[in-house]
Amino acid sequence: MSDHELKQLIEAADRAITAEDFEALMGFYAEDATLVVKPGLNATGKAQIHRAFVAIADHFNHQIKVRQGAMKVIEGGDSALVIMETVLDTVDAHGIQGSIVRRATYVFRKDAHGKWLCVIDNSYGTALLDA
Amino acid sequence: MSDHELKQLIEAADRAITAEDFEALMGFYAEDATLVVKPGLNATGKAQIHRAFVAIADHFNHQIKVRQGAMKVIEGGDSALVIMETVLDTVDAHGIQGSIVRRATYVFRKDAHGKWLCVIDNSYGTALLDA
Repeated sequence: MSDHELKQLIEAADRAITAEDFEALMGFYAEDATLVVKPGLNATGKAQIHRAFVAIADHFNHQIKVRQGAMKVIEGGDSALVIMETVLDTVDAHGIQGSIVRRATYVFRKDAHGKWLCVIDNSYGTALLDA
Repeated sequence: MSDHELKQLIEAADRAITAEDFEALMGFYAEDATLVVKPGLNATGKAQIHRAFVAIADHFNHQIKVRQGAMKVIEGGDSALVIMETVLDTVDAHGIQGSIVRRATYVFRKDAHGKWLCVIDNSYGTALLDA
């Protein structure tokens, strides 16, 4: 699965997050996509998702770097469930470095032109059940 | 989220599994859905999924009972990601009872008539990354 086209897409999206290029980032989402900002708080639609990423960048003092580990893709019915180890490298206001490792779950759907768009972005994976 | 319409749907599907009513069970899946039978083995399309459930029932000596625990639903773009604690109560060939607890991930999509159909059934959740 390492060569799945969604791997390149997610890597490109994560580069856009690191670069804070939120205009480019929005190109990966469907118009009515949902982002789990944190457990219990969802952003739906590109306008809300854009605002959430601005707030996340602020929260992490504009030092966030996103990288990916192991990945599995399951395709069914023009949809894909991506299960992916995601690492957030952070630096806090005191200059202390840290890493947050999550097992993310992303749902992509193929649009009428065959382009994959993210419809559900849940970086918390099944850990949402602990919240 | 406890009253989400998908909760009733999944409970009905799990009753069909317990009753080995695989004809009724197939009504919950999209034609081109994918079931993760076990890590590394997927069944795609209703014919393969039907055969997989027959094999699973045999594997568990026709004693399997499926029940649900905590559940979260995230909707985006006419799709829904369901994260759900699933308990399989089993009895082996020696009559020994056991329970398998998983955190499952299911993807549903609304069809043209507004009916939810399962497109990806991955009862292993993010544990697939351990396989």
